[in-house]
Amino acid sequence: MIVMRKGVTEDQINAVVKKLKGIGVTPHISVGKYKTVIGAIGDIETIANVAWETYSGVEAVVPILKPYKLVSLDFKDEPTVISVSEFMLGPSCFGIIAGPCSVESEDQIKKTAASIKKSGAKAIRGGAFKPRTSPYAFQGLGEEGLKMLKEAGESEGLPVVTEILDIRDIELVAQYADILQIGARNMQNYFLLSELGRQKKPVLLKRGFSATVEEFLMAAEYILKEGNRNVILCERGIRTFENSTRNTLDISSIPVIKKLSHLPIIVDPSHASGRRDLVLPLARAAVAAGADGVMVEVHPNPQEAFSDGQQSIDLQEFDGLVSELKVIAGMLGREI
Amino acid sequence: MIVMRKGVTEDQINAVVKKLKGIGVTPHISVGKYKTVIGAIGDIETIANVAWETYSGVEAVVPILKPYKLVSLDFKDEPTVISVSEFMLGPSCFGIIAGPCSVESEDQIKKTAASIKKSGAKAIRGGAFKPRTSPYAFQGLGEEGLKMLKEAGESEGLPVVTEILDIRDIELVAQYADILQIGARNMQNYFLLSELGRQKKPVLLKRGFSATVEEFLMAAEYILKEGNRNVILCERGIRTFENSTRNTLDISSIPVIKKLSHLPIIVDPSHASGRRDLVLPLARAAVAAGADGVMVEVHPNPQEAFSDGQQSIDLQEFDGLVSELKVIAGMLGREI
Amino acid sequence: MIVMRKGVTEDQINAVVKKLKGIGVTPHISVGKYKTVIGAIGDIETIANVAWETYSGVEAVVPILKPYKLVSLDFKDEPTVISVSEFMLGPSCFGIIAGPCSVESEDQIKKTAASIKKSGAKAIRGGAFKPRTSPYAFQGLGEEGLKMLKEAGESEGLPVVTEILDIRDIELVAQYADILQIGARNMQNYFLLSELGRQKKPVLLKRGFSATVEEFLMAAEYILKEGNRNVILCERGIRTFENSTRNTLDISSIPVIKKLSHLPIIVDPSHASGRRDLVLPLARAAVAAGADGVMVEVHPNPQEAFSDGQQSIDLQEFDGLVSELKVIAGMLGREI
Amino acid sequence: MIVMRKGVTEDQINAVVKKLKGIGVTPHISVGKYKTVIGAIGDIETIANVAWETYSGVEAVVPILKPYKLVSLDFKDEPTVISVSEFMLGPSCFGIIAGPCSVESEDQIKKTAASIKKSGAKAIRGGAFKPRTSPYAFQGLGEEGLKMLKEAGESEGLPVVTEILDIRDIELVAQYADILQIGARNMQNYFLLSELGRQKKPVLLKRGFSATVEEFLMAAEYILKEGNRNVILCERGIRTFENSTRNTLDISSIPVIKKLSHLPIIVDPSHASGRRDLVLPLARAAVAAGADGVMVEVHPNPQEAFSDGQQSIDLQEFDGLVSELKVIAGMLGREI
Repeated sequence: MIVMRKGVTEDQINAVVKKLKGIGVTPHISVGKYKTVIGAIGDIETIANVAWETYSGVEAVVPILKPYKLVSLDFKDEPTVISVSEFMLGPSCFGIIAGPCSVESEDQIKKTAASIKKSGAKAIRGGAFKPRTSPYAFQGLGEEGLKMLKEAGESEGLPVVTEILDIRDIELVAQYADILQIGARNMQNYFLLSELGRQKKPVLLKRGFSATVEEFLMAAEYILKEGNRNVILCERGIRTFENSTRNTLDISSIPVIKKLSHLPIIVDPSHASGRRDLVLPLARAAVAAGADGVMVEVHPNPQEAFSDGQQSIDLQEFDGLVSELKVIAGMLGREI
Repeated sequence: MIVMRKGVTEDQINAVVKKLKGIGVTPHISVGKYKTVIGAIGDIETIANVAWETYSGVEAVVPILKPYKLVSLDFKDEPTVISVSEFMLGPSCFGIIAGPCSVESEDQIKKTAASIKKSGAKAIRGGAFKPRTSPYAFQGLGEEGLKMLKEAGESEGLPVVTEILDIRDIELVAQYADILQIGARNMQNYFLLSELGRQKKPVLLKRGFSATVEEFLMAAEYILKEGNRNVILCERGIRTFENSTRNTLDISSIPVIKKLSHLPIIVDPSHASGRRDLVLPLARAAVAAGADGVMVEVHPNPQEAFSDGQQSIDLQEFDGLVSELKVIAGMLGREI
Repeated sequence: MIVMRKGVTEDQINAVVKKLKGIGVTPHISVGKYKTVIGAIGDIETIANVAWETYSGVEAVVPILKPYKLVSLDFKDEPTVISVSEFMLGPSCFGIIAGPCSVESEDQIKKTAASIKKSGAKAIRGGAFKPRTSPYAFQGLGEEGLKMLKEAGESEGLPVVTEILDIRDIELVAQYADILQIGARNMQNYFLLSELGRQKKPVLLKRGFSATVEEFLMAAEYILKEGNRNVILCERGIRTFENSTRNTLDISSIPVIKKLSHLPIIVDPSHASGRRDLVLPLARAAVAAGADGVMVEVHPNPQEAFSDGQQSIDLQEFDGLVSELKVIAGMLGREI
Repeated sequence: MIVMRKGVTEDQINAVVKKLKGIGVTPHISVGKYKTVIGAIGDIETIANVAWETYSGVEAVVPILKPYKLVSLDFKDEPTVISVSEFMLGPSCFGIIAGPCSVESEDQIKKTAASIKKSGAKAIRGGAFKPRTSPYAFQGLGEEGLKMLKEAGESEGLPVVTEILDIRDIELVAQYADILQIGARNMQNYFLLSELGRQKKPVLLKRGFSATVEEFLMAAEYILKEGNRNVILCERGIRTFENSTRNTLDISSIPVIKKLSHLPIIVDPSHASGRRDLVLPLARAAVAAGADGVMVEVHPNPQEAFSDGQQSIDLQEFDGLVSELKVIAGMLGREI
């Protein structure tokens, strides 16, 4: 919809109409008491590529169609189910991913794997390459860490989720991981998105902490467009003025995305809050809001964690968390 | 804590120390490798009233103590229970307030009262004076509306919650209402806060949509300071960049406030989202996160509502909502 | 514009069309490849009062017309000039208001008045009733302060600007002040706005720290609607995630508002930044961006100020500031 | 500073003290009336790597030292001057970079280069690889575009600025460009930052649209840490709730960064506003606030631009802009 200014001239309207016709779009003109509006119903990309605001007489351009396609419920109206061995996300199953922020040692990761498996986790997470705000902070064990993680996962039958930071590492990481994670800081790293769209493993895409829901879905569109339809969305908090939590968990994004997309969406209450004492209530809220799963930071000894200790729960707390989530998930017809 | 710049001189430190002593505060000086820090442990107001940043050599002032007192768990470590006839908010009871945005007619409000009572609501809300962004929008029925609301409430045994907009109306509104609401736009209207602190009816204080948790608690402090300890906090969404919902429900604020204050906190999922289809999932999330209650906009016929129709659920939807909340509240040891 | 969902039925379209006709609006239907859009060109308030989102088949409602009228350039295309004795704001004159945050003593305010007058200020500001986040902080001298302020202003020929906090104080304050200020926290206190619209003195309206430009103009509309056309808008920073300044000066709002409204707009660099060292560069930026004036906190001795000392400049700094602003204002064809 | 909760026990304090000593840090304990505070003055990284919040009795951790080093004025107190042939940024020279969003054709870029050179630009910008929110939008001409850009720059003696999106393209892009740009979406792409720190060409680092000033400086630290000290910071707007502009230009960040860092900082008014009509007033504000330069999108025919046409000014408007900036820069002792 192209809204023209009050007092727009015939010539100004004609210039817009001519351009629309030139790009193969049929214009519909509505003359109101105050404003004239030109409807341009046609291919959204063709229309969006023109700088309408630079035409004189144009006041505003209001897009009506959503800019994404493949991720949309309009395109596919059945929920996408993600399934990797026992790990499953979908309308009837609620999936729990757990593990430490960073893989630190064989002992740490094995102990974690055994315990979370028993509690009810269906996949294990752990970082081998860590994005840190400070160049002086611990950056992860690299390939060594990936090996430990894979071994721990295999011995318990838990698929492995880990983050890819550098586009040059895709092959390396894919040797060890079952689900490839794109972190919040890389949500708009379009080359990385496209490359992961060209391989077959499921991708766990975290929402950028200042991305709108629409931009989040557009980022997923980059992956689907290249052929990979197995994308898990992950809400992990957005940046706001509130400073009692590291980020603000946008709990509404869960039901909002359910109305727009067929992709499953999970919640990361650990990064959203940055506070160990909030992980349990926020995980409960996530299930209650309709999320398909959660991803939780768990560490055998949070006090000694190399990173994110302040937001990690311990193995026993995790066990209690799973029990509580089961009740709410059950009420909503989902199994853990 | 007063942090001094690198290269601070003796004289600059002495000026700060002298001023601290002048206002009756004992300074503690820590000289570090890079910075010198002066600890000023004493009465927070006395210290905060000085413009330390204007002293040369001062880099930053970092407050350590919380600025509120009476609302704090440090002051009173048992949860405050609010109780008005059958309506109760506290650790073992979850309270539901429901009703239309505006009182529109006797028929509308009576029908609503009868139905929500049967479903399980414990108090009725309705607006008689409406704050509207546009001066041209419907502004409420005024005293006429208050009368209808009170009658409808009384006939069903439901206490009445309504908003006060104008400080000059307190006496008038208090004749009809059992709980007096301060809206989000008035959260920092300090004269209104203080006046309501001087009367005895419970006050429902909504969080300003751009207030931090700390500012929210400070606003409650204004009420408690004047003597009224019966304050209900209400989270109703904060303003962020995300535009798929009217505001962003800050679900984390529930457990955060539980760690800081003894006051009960409820959630308004209708104003938080501005979307009828999100009211149910967000209400569930609120219970799951540990809220003490919810306040929901309900209308017999949302399509014909004079205001906020797009975020009101109908009577049947409300009935379903209460049933679902009961299960989650029950799991957390609360009765509805 | 009412956008219908994909797969909308004839009946759903007809229900919307019928309602539109029922409220006297002519609908225009455009059927596109993917979506059907119903244009509703008519009286904006009548249309906005219906909850279209509750009609089945409706996906979104997109307003095309601006919701304000009297403040709009569409209504009056010549800039409004505010003039109170020597103080003038308009296309050819740049106005400077200066003074302390709070009136503290006769000596303080007289000294300030004499000095800023000499430097080039055209009006004096000072607070007698102070809105403070903490109920324990200094709340102003009240009427005593108003008297001192008026005397100081009169002796130097400077009109007086001061804030009204309590609607019950309008008459009192109007006895002493020439321009009545509505603070940021009260920008949506609609009763206060309307009352000030019914008296004749110019109103200085500060932007709420989380108000959009549109909401800011809507607040001004409340004043104009009651008859008072002399409103000065004041940008004073908005709340964002950035924490190196108290608020984030939205410098773009100056040219944005110039495109939308005929009302003059000034900038308050002191409250926007909360930092004395930023007042000068931000004041320069304000003039350069096209503001009609600035309001600056000035104190003879910022270290001893009762409030806002950390953001007040001293008398000498103010003198330097005026000299610099003169050069930039001159380049843009404005006189100070 | 580690703040302990009210009622903390000796044992809890001792556990923290023991851990501090264990990592080689000397603790200073201050016992106040309400709270006990433990000062930990030592190496910031060592201290920050411990999850203090997980120790029982700890209420909050308040960092006192800034987390960056090499970018800090504490490390180097003279402004860094960037100089590439005639292009220079520093305390006495104000630099202007101009050019189209995307390189579209030889004709377009040559025409632009010739015209902006005459007007007073000192470097030319243009995109060959474009990051687009939509995978369906124009993505740039790639190497072909780089060649055209380099030729156009060389023929006019203008150094070339262009963005690197993919870490694998560094060598390719470095063949053609004189200054390598890191876009806002990649500000926390740490591998890309580090790689550009290992080569010698100056880097133009754009602020992420939701990065704090501190995070912005930390990103620059990643580059400096690897050896490259020639970094130009670029403010280009942050994401806020305000929607009348694409982003909100954080004009205060200019003087704030000048107080913290020796690196030069420029402003991009085109991306900050997303509106052609705001480019001139915001560019003026940038100079007035103390920026070291501006980067402006200029296109011979904005109506036909492949991307960002709505925010590009034309060649004549650019000529006027340079004239106005010269006056303000001159007043502040800078030459263009």
